[in-house]
Amino acid sequence: MGEVPESHPRYASLKARKQLTDAASAGLLADSALIAHGRGEAFDYLIGEVTCDTAREAIGEVAARLQSADNPVISVNGNTVALAGPQMIACAAALSCPIEVNIYYRTPERMRVLLSALDTQRQEAAALYPELADKIAKVEVLGANPDGRIPNLDGPRANCHTDGILSADVVLVPLEDGDRCEALIAMGKTVCVVDLNPLSRTARMASVTIVDELTRCIPILLTILMNETKLPNHEWDNEQNLQNAIKVMLRNLE
Amino acid sequence: MGEVPESHPRYASLKARKQLTDAASAGLLADSALIAHGRGEAFDYLIGEVTCDTAREAIGEVAARLQSADNPVISVNGNTVALAGPQMIACAAALSCPIEVNIYYRTPERMRVLLSALDTQRQEAAALYPELADKIAKVEVLGANPDGRIPNLDGPRANCHTDGILSADVVLVPLEDGDRCEALIAMGKTVCVVDLNPLSRTARMASVTIVDELTRCIPILLTILMNETKLPNHEWDNEQNLQNAIKVMLRNLE
Repeated sequence: MGEVPESHPRYASLKARKQLTDAASAGLLADSALIAHGRGEAFDYLIGEVTCDTAREAIGEVAARLQSADNPVISVNGNTVALAGPQMIACAAALSCPIEVNIYYRTPERMRVLLSALDTQRQEAAALYPELADKIAKVEVLGANPDGRIPNLDGPRANCHTDGILSADVVLVPLEDGDRCEALIAMGKTVCVVDLNPLSRTARMASVTIVDELTRCIPILLTILMNETKLPNHEWDNEQNLQNAIKVMLRNLE
Repeated sequence: MGEVPESHPRYASLKARKQLTDAASAGLLADSALIAHGRGEAFDYLIGEVTCDTAREAIGEVAARLQSADNPVISVNGNTVALAGPQMIACAAALSCPIEVNIYYRTPERMRVLLSALDTQRQEAAALYPELADKIAKVEVLGANPDGRIPNLDGPRANCHTDGILSADVVLVPLEDGDRCEALIAMGKTVCVVDLNPLSRTARMASVTIVDELTRCIPILLTILMNETKLPNHEWDNEQNLQNAIKVMLRNLE
């Protein structure tokens, strides 16, 4: 895939695709990561490739939960780093919380490449959001030396940091898999996810699900975190929010 | 991704995913091929991961068009070879027609790897379908030395064989892209495609669209080609068939 001209009507989607294939070449992603991205593309197509009202409500709710958390943590995987690494670092800066690299198919080599990518992205983030530069410099990036495990998960995907995911009360974890989402919920955490498939186990298990494309919704979340203080909606009905997203897709399919 | 046990409830889908990631490692696929497969997975999820009645009708119509063609040709790309190469060779044998490797992102290296994969798959096909073994041995595999071009297409993706796609009246081309489908239709050919997205340009441009997963529908097509003679339905309404597929997806989403 060559360079995508900004004038292309599907620039955003093609740019995301290129970021992912570049990340795959650079060793940031597991084998199945591109397939997962493709599934997302299909659901994004159904949602109309725009941030719908129901997604905006979920973004506001996620902002509120993160802002009112005692120990918020942002957990990122390969696809998240490839698509929105600098923006995730900026969100962590706005919240003064750590980022933890937590991947399903953990290998030392992929962890090394991802932590190194985040190092570079920290500088990109400071250039993109100069008003956050001081806080961006202080964001703690965890993942290299996990000293704890998520209960009820087997294998290396359970590894995590005691002072990161393990002690967090609210976790923002975009693009999470169903098993780990379920395990985090079972630990009593508030789990905020970004998932374009409103029918997925992750979407249905999570406390708050943003049904939107990552590179569209994270900048909106960041703007709120930088400028407003939101209050959590204690009546939040995630199931209803997912139903509303499905309705948008049904309208577009019809 | 390790070996998938046959008892897994989503064995077929996980097996296809493994075939694709293995093919990517072996150099059979372009960068974006895994993303395209993921889009297919999402639509397959919506169609219920089964061959619906409307797909069965399309499969029968494709069989009839191929059987009554003067010069049928089967055109395959990387994903098709990875997922159903031996079955495509068996279809070509049952029709006594050539297979042509025709890929969007053509490089000499990928063409070489694909032609070599088909060589191995010819032996697999003969073992799987011994009743076709003599015909399978004679299937002509084109693609190495294209001597013609599809009009109205730029770049290497237009390259094809005069005694293959260029002179064919009916082309079965699973997983085709919209541009090339349109160009083949503009040449007056009957174009039969397999596409899980009933809204795609390919699905809407084609003469007959099978909205089904490749590894499910090709064995059904092959069984018809080996055992029955079908007559084309001169009233075939592809638009209506696509609408019926969308209705199945709507019911599953609801």
